[in-house]
Amino acid sequence: MTAIARHSAVWTPNALSTPSAVRRHNLGVVLRHVLERGPRSRATIAQETGLNKTTVSRLVGELLELGLLTERGIEARGTAGRPGHVIDVARDGAVALGLEVNVDYLSVQATDLAGGSRYRARETADNRAADSGTVLDRLAELVHGALVEVRAQGLRAIGATVALPGLVDVARGTLPAAPNLGWSDVAIVDELRARIGTPLLLDADNEANLAALAELWDGVAVGVSDFMYVSGQVGVGGGIVLGGELFRGYRGFGGELGHMVVDAAGALCACGSRGCLETRCGLEPLLAAAGGAPLSRRPVADLARRARAGDPEALAALDDCGVWLGVALGNVANLLSPEAVVLGGYFAPLAGWLTPAIERELSERVLGAAVPQVLASRLGAEAAVRGAAAIQLRRVVADPARIGSVIS
Amino acid sequence: MTAIARHSAVWTPNALSTPSAVRRHNLGVVLRHVLERGPRSRATIAQETGLNKTTVSRLVGELLELGLLTERGIEARGTAGRPGHVIDVARDGAVALGLEVNVDYLSVQATDLAGGSRYRARETADNRAADSGTVLDRLAELVHGALVEVRAQGLRAIGATVALPGLVDVARGTLPAAPNLGWSDVAIVDELRARIGTPLLLDADNEANLAALAELWDGVAVGVSDFMYVSGQVGVGGGIVLGGELFRGYRGFGGELGHMVVDAAGALCACGSRGCLETRCGLEPLLAAAGGAPLSRRPVADLARRARAGDPEALAALDDCGVWLGVALGNVANLLSPEAVVLGGYFAPLAGWLTPAIERELSERVLGAAVPQVLASRLGAEAAVRGAAAIQLRRVVADPARIGSVIS
Repeated sequence: MTAIARHSAVWTPNALSTPSAVRRHNLGVVLRHVLERGPRSRATIAQETGLNKTTVSRLVGELLELGLLTERGIEARGTAGRPGHVIDVARDGAVALGLEVNVDYLSVQATDLAGGSRYRARETADNRAADSGTVLDRLAELVHGALVEVRAQGLRAIGATVALPGLVDVARGTLPAAPNLGWSDVAIVDELRARIGTPLLLDADNEANLAALAELWDGVAVGVSDFMYVSGQVGVGGGIVLGGELFRGYRGFGGELGHMVVDAAGALCACGSRGCLETRCGLEPLLAAAGGAPLSRRPVADLARRARAGDPEALAALDDCGVWLGVALGNVANLLSPEAVVLGGYFAPLAGWLTPAIERELSERVLGAAVPQVLASRLGAEAAVRGAAAIQLRRVVADPARIGSVIS
Repeated sequence: MTAIARHSAVWTPNALSTPSAVRRHNLGVVLRHVLERGPRSRATIAQETGLNKTTVSRLVGELLELGLLTERGIEARGTAGRPGHVIDVARDGAVALGLEVNVDYLSVQATDLAGGSRYRARETADNRAADSGTVLDRLAELVHGALVEVRAQGLRAIGATVALPGLVDVARGTLPAAPNLGWSDVAIVDELRARIGTPLLLDADNEANLAALAELWDGVAVGVSDFMYVSGQVGVGGGIVLGGELFRGYRGFGGELGHMVVDAAGALCACGSRGCLETRCGLEPLLAAAGGAPLSRRPVADLARRARAGDPEALAALDDCGVWLGVALGNVANLLSPEAVVLGGYFAPLAGWLTPAIERELSERVLGAAVPQVLASRLGAEAAVRGAAAIQLRRVVADPARIGSVIS
């Protein structure tokens, strides 16, 4: 019996590609119920969701087939009646991949439905020196490596989201502009799909948007509904969360704090404008201002070490970067009146030296003492890939039938 | 029979102060139906809303008593049955007042439920030279004048919203800070209520927020869901509309574009910061840059006249102001990715000279060619009072029972 024939006892791939809206909705209801409330029997799920037992049994059957739920043990019951198997989220079933192309590295992470990281890989690379095709070749190799590793763990990759340091057209899966990569108008999703081969749900998003979501869902901003995330990469990225949701804006390219002008007559920016925050707080201007030894392999750690040792040039450069961040974040505070700002990327390990200057500027510049809290990320360099994997998993949890098209 | 006894045939003031949620909701349903669909009989309303005829008759009765609906003529009907009276919005019933305290004037407008302006008054005043109590005394006199005028038209004022050039705590009805007035922590709503006497629904809001709503509901931004409104007053105000709603932000003080820093080391601003947009594009720095004759009574009209005549100093000052507006609006575009920006206040009559520089900066500074449209207000100096009256009327339409507490 082939896998497809076995599936067709409960549903067929055709049925999944045109499921009834109600059944499709209820698949998500049952999966979310188990995710949020924990392991329980079919009977308990039926009782708690108000769905009838037959329906729940059928839906659980589909979710077992999709590898999203698993069956284990027997539920202890206080009442009479046949005890049922406990249904739990399939920690060893589906995973989603978070991928990242940034200016100086490529990264991948596999996350399971319970939120556990199952595989990580990262390689440094000077992606500015390469064209997009070459970089996507290497990213596809990283994906192949991840697929081999997750299969060896008995897991199945259902989808991947690519984090990119530039403007991403999420609906089209394209990258209209990435100034720090020197790329424009790259059809990321199509190009990556052609290189991967294996069917995967595939999409793309801005790296700082995804990192902001990782902070909201699993980081320092859990419970914070309105915040500005700002990330030190080679460039400076930003993501806005309003009312507990990522804010993209009407034209879809919101959150670009790195290109807020803090010094209108300042240095030319890679984006074509002048005096952007990035020209003051990007990695290269920060290291140049700090002086010291020529570029090391771990420049941020070296800068932190010098600051800890009291090096005046390092401290002055960090204070100056904090001032410019404070000016930009003060503008955000006067415009969006958020609860908090979150420092990510290399701003996080440097937060101890940046925050005093940021808070000084905020208290001087924000009206009505509506000064946001300044929080430092603890997710490290993984924030964007973590958010990328998580958003893909959340899409599947919202609509489990989506993965019908990619199961093998 | 007193008015109250007459009302009690249908409902009592007590019933109105604790109405059932359903009846309260349905009052709004019927009123909005007539507002949106036009005059029609009780029977037609019942048929179209799905409410039963008895319920509709009772709700229409209450809305007639509240002065929100009126009865006129007989509906022509194609079908058999007793023809019914046509129910219409009471254009000659309720009005709301929009009030404004700005730096150099006080203003009032009365608007009826059909959106018609029924009374306007404006007086110039140097409110910076006066304490808040004195200014509110004068505002209360303006309100009394308006109440006399609307009563003479057979209208009844149900509420008023005060537009203020500063940070407004809408929930508390207070003004924590208004740098350009030199006021802080004024309990505007309580102080004004004590001076007015007549019971009115009373609240306060930021003047640029209200002007932005006027543009959205009745101005150049009708149909524009996401825009930044920027207003030249003595200071520079701002209001943000996202997804067709006014955006206030978590701490409630969003939209303050006038205090976006465009020149961090620039001139000291009234708010305590340095280099705010207002220090470049506020009325005084603009007129100072334009030079020419000493301050006239109509400085903006004079500046426009000089620009039309080709005066190079006036043109240079306007271009410079356009550049700084363009820098600030470019920052907004990179952050919020809006559909449009709207120039209000004195920026509107000067838009012909400001817009070229604004568009130049936007096209140079906004990533991904996501450049917002630049629109100029046509509401003139009335925008804020118009929005103020409209928001009060919309609150009543959403929940007509609110006015039970203030009817005489």
